[in-house]
Amino acid sequence: MEIGATSEISLEELQLAARNHGLPLEALRYPITPLGLHYLLIHFDIPDVDAATWRLRVGGRVERPFELSLEGLKARPSQTLAVTLECAGNGRALLAPHVVSQPWLRDAVGTAEWTGTPLAPLLEEAGVEDGAVEVVFTGLDRGVQGDVEHAYERSLPVADAMRDEVLLAYAVNGQPLPPQHGFPLRLVVPGWYGMTHVKWLAGITVVDEPFRGWQQDVAYHLRASEDEHGTPVTRIQPRALLVPPGIPEFLSRSRLVEAGAVVLEGRAWSGWAPIERVEVSADGGETWRDARLDEPLSDFAWRGWTLEWPAEPGEYELCCRATDAAGNTQPFEPEWNYDGVCNNAVQRVPVTVR
Amino acid sequence: MEIGATSEISLEELQLAARNHGLPLEALRYPITPLGLHYLLIHFDIPDVDAATWRLRVGGRVERPFELSLEGLKARPSQTLAVTLECAGNGRALLAPHVVSQPWLRDAVGTAEWTGTPLAPLLEEAGVEDGAVEVVFTGLDRGVQGDVEHAYERSLPVADAMRDEVLLAYAVNGQPLPPQHGFPLRLVVPGWYGMTHVKWLAGITVVDEPFRGWQQDVAYHLRASEDEHGTPVTRIQPRALLVPPGIPEFLSRSRLVEAGAVVLEGRAWSGWAPIERVEVSADGGETWRDARLDEPLSDFAWRGWTLEWPAEPGEYELCCRATDAAGNTQPFEPEWNYDGVCNNAVQRVPVTVR
Repeated sequence: MEIGATSEISLEELQLAARNHGLPLEALRYPITPLGLHYLLIHFDIPDVDAATWRLRVGGRVERPFELSLEGLKARPSQTLAVTLECAGNGRALLAPHVVSQPWLRDAVGTAEWTGTPLAPLLEEAGVEDGAVEVVFTGLDRGVQGDVEHAYERSLPVADAMRDEVLLAYAVNGQPLPPQHGFPLRLVVPGWYGMTHVKWLAGITVVDEPFRGWQQDVAYHLRASEDEHGTPVTRIQPRALLVPPGIPEFLSRSRLVEAGAVVLEGRAWSGWAPIERVEVSADGGETWRDARLDEPLSDFAWRGWTLEWPAEPGEYELCCRATDAAGNTQPFEPEWNYDGVCNNAVQRVPVTVR
Repeated sequence: MEIGATSEISLEELQLAARNHGLPLEALRYPITPLGLHYLLIHFDIPDVDAATWRLRVGGRVERPFELSLEGLKARPSQTLAVTLECAGNGRALLAPHVVSQPWLRDAVGTAEWTGTPLAPLLEEAGVEDGAVEVVFTGLDRGVQGDVEHAYERSLPVADAMRDEVLLAYAVNGQPLPPQHGFPLRLVVPGWYGMTHVKWLAGITVVDEPFRGWQQDVAYHLRASEDEHGTPVTRIQPRALLVPPGIPEFLSRSRLVEAGAVVLEGRAWSGWAPIERVEVSADGGETWRDARLDEPLSDFAWRGWTLEWPAEPGEYELCCRATDAAGNTQPFEPEWNYDGVCNNAVQRVPVTVR
């Protein structure tokens, strides 16, 4: 099984693990993740949206508030971008002490081609007023968390919202958004963790004070305890994952590999800067070799890598580690925090070569 | 949280829960489950199949063995059927004592429109020899389970394989099979639990002795202990599920409902006979009312149901119970067995009305 795992999970957490799902790691073989294999976190319930009456409302501190229908959005200039999305809680279940929430191992990731209309021109048409500091994105999903009833809402500083790559997406992998990915419209903020990409988007509100909603101001912070406010989680930390080679044992997922030249393959990504290096170890991190990097798919998507491994009979622990052009890399051991976020410790895959 | 849950699950089981997933229960609202929301169990790994070189091999005790390409299969007569699929292990995590395997709650179900070519004419063309007793279906997925390395294989008695509704499916919901649903071809056996519907199908072999493969002869039996051989699991036991009303609390998934006329809705199915009755209780099974049944989608798919519930402030436990035309119904308490299969105990959803 996964090295690093330490404790049992409760049936409350299992309820989340049963609804939501990671990327089966063998699906790292696809540069663009097929629909249904991309990781999925549905925070509350999938809302039931009638596209015919749905409207996107743009308002707040703007000179010209307006509404747009889905057809109106589709009539605007469109852009398609390959974007890697990862949940900020990826790796949470590998932390000790245990952090109670969606119990991700290391597979809460996926890469899709999102099609939509850029957000910046739309905000420019609305006319962001002087004094505006943030843009708040409101989803139609609603529930209770931290004893607070709320719609799912997140904000971005105006400068981040105005970046060229930020999209309002109505299609994924060439198809209309399916319900679980935010039909009819979701925000896509390339490079940022998944909680930023608000689904079932219905409202865009420009505000002149920092937004204090629960999902923004309480959740998704790097902090040592509940009493601390901490540092907001924003962009994706670097990570490399490998396709576990050979065949699995059903329950333990331990791997059995035939001796010979094994091509190890995987993907690596970072929200801070392009991936510059992927290293692979077959001895649990004692020694490392550089993998060959594929051409990037886009500025905001994972980068494929391969390494030929002359596998001789025995027991091994495969690891991989990504480094980006800004010098960010992965720790070997997890770094604990109260929310269980941003755990980008290296993947460790025990294999038996026969 | 789910009533009936009793124990914690291990991180080995979490590895399965993170890869595989159930139907988020609010998605019971869709008569045909959108792709990506249908339950998914990938037993070993998703194999990497090149459709250009892939062939279906039909052989064994037949007079004229042959091979078919994907194009060859698509050129044959096609049929589209709405079929409800459920994992035989659905409900396993609600059993006590705990059964270690894929830890399903109650949501390992979905209904899709499968398109393919009927199996029977293909077997007739091959010419099943006298003395044949079963047809073995071999998938391209391979792994280790019960200390035995094997390809995923299941068999059907010849008479069951020859039924009109049995399909070799190459499309789902109008799209080519995605990798996780068995690309390029899977078996669909309407009415039977999911383990029967072999994915990544590559071989159909007629045999004159009952097939003794691990997935057929050891797994998927109703038995009291490991020492018993038990009774093979075949068709789906009746079950009704309801869409949990109101809004959820993120972690506990407990429900908060506004007082007033609440339309409860859900789906019910059985692999043995048409659904004839769905009853709903708001008091934890003390009293029951009959729900209104929608028209059936097909002979092999779930049936929608609704019931208006005059919700007054207070605490409730909603339950629903299906009965089929053969008189099969659901027990209120789970019935334990060693493999943790066929647990069709009634769903129990605690709600707070305010």
